[in-house]
Amino acid sequence: MVNETQQSCSASSSSRSDAGSSSGSEGSKDSSRCSTPVLDADRHERLREKMRRRQDSGDKWFSLEFFPPRTANAAVNLISRFDRMGAGGPLFVDVTWHPAGDPGSDKETSSMIIANTAVNYCGLETILHMTCCNQTKDDITAHLQKAKRLGLKNIMALRGDPVGEEWEEEVDGFNYAVDLVKHIRHEFEDYFDICVAGYPKGHPEAESYEADLRHLKEKVFAGADFIITQLFFRSETFLRFMKDCQGIGITCPIIPGIFPIQGYHSLRQLVKLSKLEVPQEIKDVIEPIKDNDAAIRSYGVELAVSMCRELLDSGVVHGLHFYTLNREVATTEVLKRLGMWKEDPRRPLPWAVSAHPKRRVEDVRPIFWASRPKSYIYRTQEWDDFPNGRWGNSSSPAFGELKDYYLFYLKSKSPREELLKMWGEELTGEESVFEVFTCYITGEPNKNGHKVTCMPWNDDPLATETNLLKEQLEKVNRRGILTINSQPNINGKPSTDPIVGWGPSGGYVFQKAYLEFFTSSEIVTALLKVLKKYELRVNYHIVNVKGQNITNAPDLQPNAVTWGIFPGREIIQPTVVDPVSFLSWKDEAFALWIEQWAKLYEEESPSRMIIQYIHDNYYLVNLVDNDFPLENCLWQVVDDTFELLN
Amino acid sequence: MVNETQQSCSASSSSRSDAGSSSGSEGSKDSSRCSTPVLDADRHERLREKMRRRQDSGDKWFSLEFFPPRTANAAVNLISRFDRMGAGGPLFVDVTWHPAGDPGSDKETSSMIIANTAVNYCGLETILHMTCCNQTKDDITAHLQKAKRLGLKNIMALRGDPVGEEWEEEVDGFNYAVDLVKHIRHEFEDYFDICVAGYPKGHPEAESYEADLRHLKEKVFAGADFIITQLFFRSETFLRFMKDCQGIGITCPIIPGIFPIQGYHSLRQLVKLSKLEVPQEIKDVIEPIKDNDAAIRSYGVELAVSMCRELLDSGVVHGLHFYTLNREVATTEVLKRLGMWKEDPRRPLPWAVSAHPKRRVEDVRPIFWASRPKSYIYRTQEWDDFPNGRWGNSSSPAFGELKDYYLFYLKSKSPREELLKMWGEELTGEESVFEVFTCYITGEPNKNGHKVTCMPWNDDPLATETNLLKEQLEKVNRRGILTINSQPNINGKPSTDPIVGWGPSGGYVFQKAYLEFFTSSEIVTALLKVLKKYELRVNYHIVNVKGQNITNAPDLQPNAVTWGIFPGREIIQPTVVDPVSFLSWKDEAFALWIEQWAKLYEEESPSRMIIQYIHDNYYLVNLVDNDFPLENCLWQVVDDTFELLN
Repeated sequence: MVNETQQSCSASSSSRSDAGSSSGSEGSKDSSRCSTPVLDADRHERLREKMRRRQDSGDKWFSLEFFPPRTANAAVNLISRFDRMGAGGPLFVDVTWHPAGDPGSDKETSSMIIANTAVNYCGLETILHMTCCNQTKDDITAHLQKAKRLGLKNIMALRGDPVGEEWEEEVDGFNYAVDLVKHIRHEFEDYFDICVAGYPKGHPEAESYEADLRHLKEKVFAGADFIITQLFFRSETFLRFMKDCQGIGITCPIIPGIFPIQGYHSLRQLVKLSKLEVPQEIKDVIEPIKDNDAAIRSYGVELAVSMCRELLDSGVVHGLHFYTLNREVATTEVLKRLGMWKEDPRRPLPWAVSAHPKRRVEDVRPIFWASRPKSYIYRTQEWDDFPNGRWGNSSSPAFGELKDYYLFYLKSKSPREELLKMWGEELTGEESVFEVFTCYITGEPNKNGHKVTCMPWNDDPLATETNLLKEQLEKVNRRGILTINSQPNINGKPSTDPIVGWGPSGGYVFQKAYLEFFTSSEIVTALLKVLKKYELRVNYHIVNVKGQNITNAPDLQPNAVTWGIFPGREIIQPTVVDPVSFLSWKDEAFALWIEQWAKLYEEESPSRMIIQYIHDNYYLVNLVDNDFPLENCLWQVVDDTFELLN
Repeated sequence: MVNETQQSCSASSSSRSDAGSSSGSEGSKDSSRCSTPVLDADRHERLREKMRRRQDSGDKWFSLEFFPPRTANAAVNLISRFDRMGAGGPLFVDVTWHPAGDPGSDKETSSMIIANTAVNYCGLETILHMTCCNQTKDDITAHLQKAKRLGLKNIMALRGDPVGEEWEEEVDGFNYAVDLVKHIRHEFEDYFDICVAGYPKGHPEAESYEADLRHLKEKVFAGADFIITQLFFRSETFLRFMKDCQGIGITCPIIPGIFPIQGYHSLRQLVKLSKLEVPQEIKDVIEPIKDNDAAIRSYGVELAVSMCRELLDSGVVHGLHFYTLNREVATTEVLKRLGMWKEDPRRPLPWAVSAHPKRRVEDVRPIFWASRPKSYIYRTQEWDDFPNGRWGNSSSPAFGELKDYYLFYLKSKSPREELLKMWGEELTGEESVFEVFTCYITGEPNKNGHKVTCMPWNDDPLATETNLLKEQLEKVNRRGILTINSQPNINGKPSTDPIVGWGPSGGYVFQKAYLEFFTSSEIVTALLKVLKKYELRVNYHIVNVKGQNITNAPDLQPNAVTWGIFPGREIIQPTVVDPVSFLSWKDEAFALWIEQWAKLYEEESPSRMIIQYIHDNYYLVNLVDNDFPLENCLWQVVDDTFELLN
């Protein structure tokens, strides 16, 4: 919240200023496979129930507020930030409503679409803000219907700022947040959890502090489930407010809004817009260092940490809500110092879970999209049912078409110049493509001194798990086995293993060795001869861009390649190699050669023709070694293939 | 087929004469857990497709014909025979229609109910015979509808024998088998696979051999899928018949009916009824040895083997149909000598599969019914959906009530006198009950010199797998931990392991250690204290007859305790410990104390009161050790419990 206008002001500057750091050290995390440490219960509970459960168990929580960015590139960055900050374990994130930015539209930067991305693609419990003044009932209903359709389950109901000075109450219109609360409950009954705003110092436009408290009570009694407060500078401000609320019969959770001061200008702007007064003791510290951003931020963190500690120690505060201003460093720092940043290296499933209610039961996916979970979620968003426990025989419904204009389906997060530096300004032949793959695997700089930190099929550096295979991968990529996905075999490691573990503790995880790569038809011919020797042990699928398909999979059945055994649970098998969906993945995997790589170069240029040649002539191959308790035989298969070729 | 009247004649004598051997050495097989080696494909294909596939692959097959017995006890024996002979891998069994025996009724001995048992409870592909003469269209339709409802998918369409000599064609009635074929196709379209009878020597009532061939062609062209022939004595009889059929355009499979001669009298009776002539060379051998049953059977086996070899060697015969006369030895012997008896020690799943089409996808069951699969099938017959891949959370539909009057739900296969010898003519206290359990485990005779080969919860001797735990089981049963179900932990044994293996080869099977027992409240109190130490490792459910239930299972979720990993497949988890269905099992398990054991004794007798006391006061306990890679800790749990008690 803070104030809608204020937030949009700081949007462009703050998102830019943090952009650098996001591709720095924090970016090296395996964000594409790691998602929020969602528990089973978390996938089924409503937000208000989660809050209650955390309060009952004494488990303190935090939440994070973001605003919609102005440009598509900033949106891409914000989504990466959702992934990274989501890993710290927020109970929810919220996305502000930005009336000037067409907030309910399908634009990449609208409030609606950013919230959609947070809930569906980043798997975060999400609150969408919504303001009501100067809007018709029909517009509001349409926004709410759309939010529901997208899987959003929580609304922050706000009045919003009237446009201009001459605002007057409309008789049948939405004049106050309470009107919106009533409307939501009337039209959508109990579907949404509703949050409303509280003002510890009273709303600047309210007749009095007491009158404002009465307004708040009206909002709660109209159906709001909890309250998030405007920011404040002293813990006693909040604690008195909370006591006053309880004094007039408000019993729902009240969550303090925390604003870590991050810079002189953003603080001044905020104060102006929110009509809050900065305490003299804070001004006294800040004024002398106003040109030293680092010093101000450091002070801001210090201040926030000590205020948060006071709040938590009071015993009446169970969660903290952070106004992040879309920045990462200060809030993360505060949370880490409070011991509330709960980065869990283990994965709830070996892929990013979506928080859409329809996908609650989903617990198995094809391994092909392991590095592109958002694309998978996008392409399956129209499914009515999601596989639960078993993928099933050829039963996967149709995969949606890829659209290359949207945020993350075919575009790279990195700008063209950076990609050219990594993947080559000019290619001289297939070997220079092999070289790019090899540098990505080894982490060594390419011949122009640039590290290759992403590939069309992997927007992030190599996963920790894949590092286990680094040496062998390097060897085969050098020779034209261009790997895009792989996993080692695992024969019952503890589920708490920091590299390959996932799921609840006390369990055991297993994997079949998997290798997926592009390669030439010459190598495929030799490979097929070698595979005859491994017929009973290795399953393979080999396909080219035209769909010519060679496989030994029985009856097109899926092959489970990751599974886990847990105390008191049924078996979970989160990834499978499914012959049917492999053909959909094939389209996507081949398209990435052109959309991300070939199109970096001029039409008809030799570089572009090299990529086009690979696209047209190479095969996409996947291999599974079924004998997971033995030593992975796939390297032997590849060695035998090269030997046959010599 | 042979001839309906003839078959019913030999029914009582032959089923009795074999009854002794069925509880002999062959009976020691673990028939309750082992079922036909059904492949995945077998569960989904129609019979005619299975025949085609076997023909294409050159994989010779056999089938077995049975007739409905006259008494309920004989029916119980026949069902055991289905289990044993089913283990040899017949492509199907068929059950003759016995017009004099109320064949479509719900009696335990009706053709309909015997066929129902074969398909649903023994998991055998089954053909139900049906005759049409002297029956109304409505009756026939009702029979067919009932057959369909019971999950029968194949009908052998026959005319049947007219009653009396004065039979005349009815104008609109069913005068010939072809009328029945047409009726089935008209009313049920392609639902049923239809078989018809062929007569290699011509039907005795046909005008001529040629006329009979034309009738056969009519039956095939009316919609029959394949032909089974009347018996014959020389292979050339069949081969000429087959050639003649093909000559007039019959292209469907023609399966020779094989009748191993098993005795002088049954042969004479057969010849009289079927109006067949026994070749002189056979008569010459048999007449001199007519009083030596063993010699005749031995000759009959010899004769059948050499005729079958000639048929198979001809290249045009792909399957053999055996008229068993409900006897086991001769047919089994012929098949073994032909190398066609394919007893596979491995289980398709660790429980008996049902061949009902509705249950095709079923692949997970609660472990509680491991020794009582027929009871489980009976109690779940009304379910619309069967669990596939995942049991799911508390989602199991209601279990049907147990009815104690039916064949195998609560009754023991053994007669009362035998049970009294095993379980004690007179009990002197709880300790004498402990003694019965202990003798069952050890295989040692009880103090009266009788071996305990079954228990109320286990109608068969101890499974081979349970033998692995014999020593520990003996120890705990002696002290009043009365075990009724258990399995060792298995950490990835090959699926071909003769003791614990199941499923296709090349896979690995796993188990969590499981122990289920009745015990006193005193022991339960100590056990619960001990279990606190094992809280994270051991899941338990403890319940008494009144339903008082103590468990540490999270959210009533099922716990997978058997699973298998196979090449190119999803994970299969055939057995789970499900907290919800455990309460249904509890009712059954407690009821067996009374129905099978207490009722052996007079009311008010001390023996009966001892069992009644145990029923009223003991608890049923199950324990799962989740840490399957470690040494089974359940024995330690029990030891600790006894130690605490001392």
